Amino acid sequence: MPAAPAVPRRYSYLGPAGTFTEAALKQVPEAAGQEWSPVDNLGEALNDVVTGASDAAMIAIENSIDGGVTVAQDALATVPGLRIVGEYLVPVNFVLVARPGTRLEDVRVVAGHPVAYGQCRAWLDAHTSRHRHLVATSNVAAAVDLFDEAKGLDAAIAPPGIEEHYDVEVLASGIAENPDAVTRFVLVSRTVPVGEPSGADKTSLIAELPEDRSGALLELLEQFATRGVNLTLLASRPIGDRMGRYRFVIDAEGHVKDERVADALLGVKRFSPRVVFLGSYPRADRVAATIRDAQDDDAFRDARDWLRGVIEGTADGAA
Amino acid sequence: MPAAPAVPRRYSYLGPAGTFTEAALKQVPEAAGQEWSPVDNLGEALNDVVTGASDAAMIAIENSIDGGVTVAQDALATVPGLRIVGEYLVPVNFVLVARPGTRLEDVRVVAGHPVAYGQCRAWLDAHTSRHRHLVATSNVAAAVDLFDEAKGLDAAIAPPGIEEHYDVEVLASGIAENPDAVTRFVLVSRTVPVGEPSGADKTSLIAELPEDRSGALLELLEQFATRGVNLTLLASRPIGDRMGRYRFVIDAEGHVKDERVADALLGVKRFSPRVVFLGSYPRADRVAATIRDAQDDDAFRDARDWLRGVIEGTADGAA
Amino acid sequence: MPAAPAVPRRYSYLGPAGTFTEAALKQVPEAAGQEWSPVDNLGEALNDVVTGASDAAMIAIENSIDGGVTVAQDALATVPGLRIVGEYLVPVNFVLVARPGTRLEDVRVVAGHPVAYGQCRAWLDAHTSRHRHLVATSNVAAAVDLFDEAKGLDAAIAPPGIEEHYDVEVLASGIAENPDAVTRFVLVSRTVPVGEPSGADKTSLIAELPEDRSGALLELLEQFATRGVNLTLLASRPIGDRMGRYRFVIDAEGHVKDERVADALLGVKRFSPRVVFLGSYPRADRVAATIRDAQDDDAFRDARDWLRGVIEGTADGAA
Amino acid sequence: MPAAPAVPRRYSYLGPAGTFTEAALKQVPEAAGQEWSPVDNLGEALNDVVTGASDAAMIAIENSIDGGVTVAQDALATVPGLRIVGEYLVPVNFVLVARPGTRLEDVRVVAGHPVAYGQCRAWLDAHTSRHRHLVATSNVAAAVDLFDEAKGLDAAIAPPGIEEHYDVEVLASGIAENPDAVTRFVLVSRTVPVGEPSGADKTSLIAELPEDRSGALLELLEQFATRGVNLTLLASRPIGDRMGRYRFVIDAEGHVKDERVADALLGVKRFSPRVVFLGSYPRADRVAATIRDAQDDDAFRDARDWLRGVIEGTADGAA
Repeated sequence: MPAAPAVPRRYSYLGPAGTFTEAALKQVPEAAGQEWSPVDNLGEALNDVVTGASDAAMIAIENSIDGGVTVAQDALATVPGLRIVGEYLVPVNFVLVARPGTRLEDVRVVAGHPVAYGQCRAWLDAHTSRHRHLVATSNVAAAVDLFDEAKGLDAAIAPPGIEEHYDVEVLASGIAENPDAVTRFVLVSRTVPVGEPSGADKTSLIAELPEDRSGALLELLEQFATRGVNLTLLASRPIGDRMGRYRFVIDAEGHVKDERVADALLGVKRFSPRVVFLGSYPRADRVAATIRDAQDDDAFRDARDWLRGVIEGTADGAA
Repeated sequence: MPAAPAVPRRYSYLGPAGTFTEAALKQVPEAAGQEWSPVDNLGEALNDVVTGASDAAMIAIENSIDGGVTVAQDALATVPGLRIVGEYLVPVNFVLVARPGTRLEDVRVVAGHPVAYGQCRAWLDAHTSRHRHLVATSNVAAAVDLFDEAKGLDAAIAPPGIEEHYDVEVLASGIAENPDAVTRFVLVSRTVPVGEPSGADKTSLIAELPEDRSGALLELLEQFATRGVNLTLLASRPIGDRMGRYRFVIDAEGHVKDERVADALLGVKRFSPRVVFLGSYPRADRVAATIRDAQDDDAFRDARDWLRGVIEGTADGAA
Repeated sequence: MPAAPAVPRRYSYLGPAGTFTEAALKQVPEAAGQEWSPVDNLGEALNDVVTGASDAAMIAIENSIDGGVTVAQDALATVPGLRIVGEYLVPVNFVLVARPGTRLEDVRVVAGHPVAYGQCRAWLDAHTSRHRHLVATSNVAAAVDLFDEAKGLDAAIAPPGIEEHYDVEVLASGIAENPDAVTRFVLVSRTVPVGEPSGADKTSLIAELPEDRSGALLELLEQFATRGVNLTLLASRPIGDRMGRYRFVIDAEGHVKDERVADALLGVKRFSPRVVFLGSYPRADRVAATIRDAQDDDAFRDARDWLRGVIEGTADGAA
Repeated sequence: MPAAPAVPRRYSYLGPAGTFTEAALKQVPEAAGQEWSPVDNLGEALNDVVTGASDAAMIAIENSIDGGVTVAQDALATVPGLRIVGEYLVPVNFVLVARPGTRLEDVRVVAGHPVAYGQCRAWLDAHTSRHRHLVATSNVAAAVDLFDEAKGLDAAIAPPGIEEHYDVEVLASGIAENPDAVTRFVLVSRTVPVGEPSGADKTSLIAELPEDRSGALLELLEQFATRGVNLTLLASRPIGDRMGRYRFVIDAEGHVKDERVADALLGVKRFSPRVVFLGSYPRADRVAATIRDAQDDDAFRDARDWLRGVIEGTADGAA
């Protein structure tokens, strides 16, 4: 008797097809051949995960030019039940597209997602006579809007390859200011047990500072430094209750199942009035953390063995 | 012989009249009765200052809900020749307005600046049946767009008082989620000599970290901590050359003419491969910094006197 | 049938009867009625413990005027198998004694232990005409030597009460410079299981610094600071292999069975190439450590529970 | 007309001729051919300097085996008007000497300075049948005492070369436990202007900690660390008023005329309720301090220039 067909896994992502978010999702081997669900914005994507409508959502979390995607950072800080399970990097490059037949010198109104527009503005200033910018909700939506006459668009900023999905012509390529721009995406699932370390991992968390202490941020950072844990990201976000109160979004090298990272997290937990653990997952760049001998798992195990012997009096105090 | 009439000073701000930025500018006594020049965006405002078209520009720098205005932070980090000379706080509240005769239950399409929309979305979700959001370039522009039929708008999110400038009706007041939300503005001029301390000042700077050192952020923060200088803001922004490289936007308590702040800045300057001093100016909240005895100006003067005597041998080494 | 008489416990101390060390031993309730064995020096006392000849030894470890008893610190750093089990404070005061009939104005040669002499020298300079000092091996031996004619002594510096043990007359009392001087003693046994916390405890250890790191002492101290553990003593002693290499003698507030102290010790153990745990024992001054909420045992337990839930995915990441 | 003969400079040292202190004084080029005045103890030596009886005194400050010479550290902390002007290292080795004709197997009573005896005790235990130790006031005095019949001595611990000064025979050489032992001496003068940096200097100071702050020692050490100044010595000494209060004896790499050292001292001065500057002088080992670019004199000068320009508004804030 044949096995019942498996229920496909469902992945939400900022659509439509052709977005950089889709490009990130294409990097996930387990997602191949599963159900991909394009959504309109981050809220929908995370909602799909929280409600169980999707198994996971791919969301942009940081851009090498624009910095943290603050709405995503804030959502991860406040929506309960989420866990980051993977990280992906997508090179960000843009083309300028138009309806077939349009000439660059005729371009007056350009649609573009604000982030994309920011990166292409210098090029547009240099290569078009005084253009106007209309905001689009995604990089692909900008191209789609070309065919909405009511919008009066001449051209759109879009990801490379857009011409394979839509009937547009590429007026210019590589129009973003920084050719090495990259966006970092994370794959988010519901809370699940943490996976095993891959040897090149990252741990994400969000921590608030105690209010009553000057130098509190320094103290927070020392929780990592004294355990030899490097940080790859430290971003502040307003807690929102009043000006001057911040939570910190932190990416640390290593995995929560690495002893030094676990110990740092215990320290942070004791120190911070509110911590959100977001996950430990393989780094997109596959760079292994540099660990000093004194901070590897053996050192932690040896220290615990020593302390036990010392307390029980079975071992000498010297070591 | 009568004196020649003085040339009025010119202030650029994100217009049109009625914006929160205008409300900030109204807090500047010296700006009263001078020329106010509304502009479309931050770039124009700063450009007016750099070119000398305006004497100063009022720009939003942080919101208690949304965090730093990253485009403003990045501009201050990279545009040379600017100086922050004042800080102002404007409570941020929103009303929902429409053309006269519109009923709340008929609202389908709502215009709003994205930041404003984010703060009012919960209210809109609760009080309108499934609305759609159209992006506006400013909070006042959203209201103005009500009268552009091509846009097909039903209502707009706008600042309180908008009805005094435009022919709109207020459908609802206080629709923002957080009634205590506030936006922080800074007044920016060309580089000028730093003013005198007011007794309750803030010093803004931007610093990059040396690349070759782990724990570099901790070291940067210690430059302030060892001099007893508290920070009111620490935000990271990508330098932009590659993922993982950040500059830090810092607001420190005190004035560069306070010895402890000057000393901290000297330490930062020696440590950091690139520092931008943005200015020392009176704090909007008029809160004086708490200074320990060991860190007041007298302590710095005494220490210098002591060291001079010690080196010259005119004073005993003990003190 | 009557129980076999218990074998009495044996305590070694720097004798003879009447020394400050004996006064310290009198403070130990369990030592009352047991066998007290006076010895000539620290080496003998510790040797008695190591060989099992005695159950414990009382040794001077620090004086409020002269500082650490370095020979004791060095012995604890190098002799294996020892454990500090108690701490005692003895006020240190001195009398000047002589053979009956001697007058103060006739005193020319004064015997005294070097430490005692140092504390009484100012008084002797003021109250005798040009005296000479002869070194004695203990404060009581100085008095005993008065009756050894070959030594040619006129007077001796001795502890108060000496006249009850020997046929001497007190020429003057309270001759030490500092009337509040106190000596700190520790009771040392063989390595035994650590006792239970009393609520006001001290933990002693000795740690060497890694050689290859500048700022290593700072890093060592941060192991305590980040866990909120205060130090009551930090003394450096040469390791002895070459100039400039030190080990550090540390007394920390709290008990190794307090979580924050155990955690600090684990950190020290991982960091230091050589650590000697000397014991956790009730403080002589009965001052309880000040502990911040974030560092009490509950905080450690809560943090561990949180981390377990986070890793297993049974608990939400937020806390 | 011939010049008046110069008044010779006078140097006090722990005598008599043949002591290690004299060996240290022989390393001082300026002392050659001047008047050398042997004294009995440290107090006399420093008193000679304070009163002007001598121009300088050579005193032992640290031994690689026994640690700091605490009486010297305490004297420098409390006697006003002194300045360290040089540092010298003397290898410490011992010979066992006796009156001519004495055989090693007949040695019963051995004279020795306590520090010397401590270093030779293991050898004596191994090579003599049960000897007794008599305390001598200096290493040379022990040898001299051999000829005082009243003392009943058989042998003496003395510095190599003693046989050139006294009629003694060497029974054994190299009897100290550690063949690399070395004693560090400092040359002390009255307070004089600090000399010029030699490129390999040391700066000595003594600092007390503020009472009202936990983590105060950490804060003191950070004054050096944030300026990139390494410490070669950190020793604690009781202030003496009550148990648990310490001052810290510090040797830092570099010269007070090096900007980073001056800046660290200014920080220490502001922080500490009592600082004693003891001097900047060439290191005995001629090892130059390692200085990071950010901490050299140029970096300090550049930072000051930058800050001045920033305040005056003549320079742009960016650098």
